[in-house]
Amino acid sequence: MAVAITACSQTPAPSTNATLATAESKVAGVNSAPNIIFLIGDGTGFEFISAYRYAHSEIGQPLIETPFDDMLVGAATTYPDDDTWVTDSAASATALATGVKSYNGAIGVDSAQHPQQTLMEKARQHGWLTGAVSTSQVTHATPASFFTHHPSRSMYNAIADSFASTKFGAQDELWSFDVLLGGGMSYFKRDDKDWLPELRNQGMTIVDDYQALEATEQLPVLGLFAPVALPYAVDDQPRLAQLTRNALRLLTAKQDESGQPFALMIEGSKIDWCGHANDIACAVHEVGDFAAALQVAKDYQAQHPNTLIVVTADHSTGGLTLGQGGEYAWYSERVMAIENSLEVLVGGLLERSRDEWRDYLAPRLNLALSEQQWQQLLATEMSGSEDRKDHEKRIHQALVALISEVTRTGWTTSGHTAVDVPIMASGPYAEQLRGYKDNTDIAKVLLQIVR
Amino acid sequence: MAVAITACSQTPAPSTNATLATAESKVAGVNSAPNIIFLIGDGTGFEFISAYRYAHSEIGQPLIETPFDDMLVGAATTYPDDDTWVTDSAASATALATGVKSYNGAIGVDSAQHPQQTLMEKARQHGWLTGAVSTSQVTHATPASFFTHHPSRSMYNAIADSFASTKFGAQDELWSFDVLLGGGMSYFKRDDKDWLPELRNQGMTIVDDYQALEATEQLPVLGLFAPVALPYAVDDQPRLAQLTRNALRLLTAKQDESGQPFALMIEGSKIDWCGHANDIACAVHEVGDFAAALQVAKDYQAQHPNTLIVVTADHSTGGLTLGQGGEYAWYSERVMAIENSLEVLVGGLLERSRDEWRDYLAPRLNLALSEQQWQQLLATEMSGSEDRKDHEKRIHQALVALISEVTRTGWTTSGHTAVDVPIMASGPYAEQLRGYKDNTDIAKVLLQIVR
Ligand SMILES: [Zn+2]
Ligand SMILES: [Zn+2]
Repeated sequence: MAVAITACSQTPAPSTNATLATAESKVAGVNSAPNIIFLIGDGTGFEFISAYRYAHSEIGQPLIETPFDDMLVGAATTYPDDDTWVTDSAASATALATGVKSYNGAIGVDSAQHPQQTLMEKARQHGWLTGAVSTSQVTHATPASFFTHHPSRSMYNAIADSFASTKFGAQDELWSFDVLLGGGMSYFKRDDKDWLPELRNQGMTIVDDYQALEATEQLPVLGLFAPVALPYAVDDQPRLAQLTRNALRLLTAKQDESGQPFALMIEGSKIDWCGHANDIACAVHEVGDFAAALQVAKDYQAQHPNTLIVVTADHSTGGLTLGQGGEYAWYSERVMAIENSLEVLVGGLLERSRDEWRDYLAPRLNLALSEQQWQQLLATEMSGSEDRKDHEKRIHQALVALISEVTRTGWTTSGHTAVDVPIMASGPYAEQLRGYKDNTDIAKVLLQIVR
Repeated sequence: MAVAITACSQTPAPSTNATLATAESKVAGVNSAPNIIFLIGDGTGFEFISAYRYAHSEIGQPLIETPFDDMLVGAATTYPDDDTWVTDSAASATALATGVKSYNGAIGVDSAQHPQQTLMEKARQHGWLTGAVSTSQVTHATPASFFTHHPSRSMYNAIADSFASTKFGAQDELWSFDVLLGGGMSYFKRDDKDWLPELRNQGMTIVDDYQALEATEQLPVLGLFAPVALPYAVDDQPRLAQLTRNALRLLTAKQDESGQPFALMIEGSKIDWCGHANDIACAVHEVGDFAAALQVAKDYQAQHPNTLIVVTADHSTGGLTLGQGGEYAWYSERVMAIENSLEVLVGGLLERSRDEWRDYLAPRLNLALSEQQWQQLLATEMSGSEDRKDHEKRIHQALVALISEVTRTGWTTSGHTAVDVPIMASGPYAEQLRGYKDNTDIAKVLLQIVR
């Protein structure tokens, strides 16, 4: 069943196949439109790029070069069609995917909950190859908004159902994606529905480990490498560059047969999560993973110049700044000394008695804390509650306060901010993204390329 | 006596006049290099532009257009040559004026305290017209770094002496500026030295009120409209656009005679001061004044296309973000309701007894505060000290906390941050400022234009 995008429904609705050009029908000709690689750093405002650069540089030495440097062309406003200037990831991803503003929580639908054509759907309808890579579950707001239409971002199972069942092509022979890589196995293989046998039966390659992905040759590919999100880069191996390389490898092989361009969305999903947690070490490593993925895309572009790369953020998160408490300093080397995310550290402390905390934390924080700072941390007030969630929150807040003071990292919120975000672009059409734009303008530039 | 820029001294040193081309010697020919209008928003990071835009827009309506929108081309790193990533205004202004990094506090000198050639000096040596406009005292770090060389930014009197006594030209007939407008009368007319009679005697027009400035026809002009800084825009009339218009009027008239380009530096000085005070209402009005000055420059450029306009910031201040305390909101209309700077409000409260505070504040804040918020504010703890400075600080902090919470404005520091700042440019050579740059790169582009 091919999906229409003119009605709002959680399950695919009937459509007029006549309007849908299929990839198969275009194999004969070669489409000269450029490939589109659209990288979205979730929550990655300018300040995260600055933090990444300084974290990996040394005072007194030349700054590191980053793959962002020659690509910055402008900035984007991100406000939603809602009663606030501050967007969530769903409204902003919908704007970036469709060119239409919507309310916070919207997945590929406008403020009247009407589905809007996404970049990936338009690409599919013109016979393009499509794909997405994320470090969150692939059912999360950003990838979901590029492929599906739902009134609420929290409908993870319904979003998985849309990915699994939305079909294109005269014989419903195509899914909305050729390659979809990230986390989220638990939404596709769940108690009430296991999509995996059915999808395999229909010809989809499904992998759940990185080695299997490297060995995969056959599209379409659904790669789900964790039940929900992938681990943080600071706690584990960075993965986004590897996933990006494989997505590009698979799309290129298919492109060599079909002669069609591809549109690939790559999300550094968890930069935002580090921001929500006010976790600076987490953030700079996650941006590092995102930068590595961008470098993979730039290397691809160097070999395939008819490729447009666009990088932006859906919003900034946490109110990060590199300066705190009046001191003219940001201690990047202290940030880089920290070896784990706050999520891991707080989890580790919760499993231990207080007299074990210092031995556990000291080699993971690697910060020269004063005796007073240690005592203050070890005395974190938790008498008010027996609730584990409450303890978690109190320990988390104590660690954020300590690390902020020691590294001079500023945070203002556990949520998002309205501050404008960077636009970076190179390749064909990049000129059209110069200056201050709205996030919907970025989508409009991309949508007009698809033909 | 003509000034050399090869030795470090507070007073002008002897120089080889042979190396100094004078304006007079070039009157005959027409120099085809473009005029340079260099606008520096002190402390004006990306977040200040976002705040300005949203503060002047209404939710549900199209955003306002700003003069920044079509000019954004990149971003700049701002770190100093010092043991920190966070610059002060002196090191950054020195980088922007000379292309050389230096230590925090440096005025036109490198880390060895050696004077470095500034944009204005090079312009002068090539016969250009020069000028500066600021809303701070003209002896403050930014204008000082474009014209003088001093080991420390705090040497206001010595900086005034440099402005008054540094001469160019074969007959020492030229000062370093044709037009210098801002605050700072108290540094030129002081107990130990009154420069005014001497300067007038040598042919300088000196004005201290805006009407007199409007009537002035004769260069050079020193316009000093306040003992120290000009008042904040939110408390008074915005002035930067008016000063900019007059500077351009006077330079244009002179240019029509001499055929020489001009280099004009315009500083929105006090955006930074609002940032240090964590005063959001102050900030958005001050950026508005800066935007109005930019619009004057753009109108000039529209009439005189051989003009390069560059806009940047020396750093960002305060760790401003538009989001605080977890809520997905920034209440721009509440920010715009506030009618005075915190400086004025705190001063007003200090002059009044507590039982008068509410009547004084209510019509100036115009915020719908809860009874609890009022009670908390009125109970601001001040018993610890009899010191007026201490009371001032406590009231200030209480107001910042209240306004931050009510408007959801985040701040992280009373100082500067290391976050990268915008570069905006239009006109000849603007292309050279695209992408991520260092602040010294901006100066290098401008210096090579001067010929
Ligand atoms: Zn988020
Ligand atoms: Zn400052």
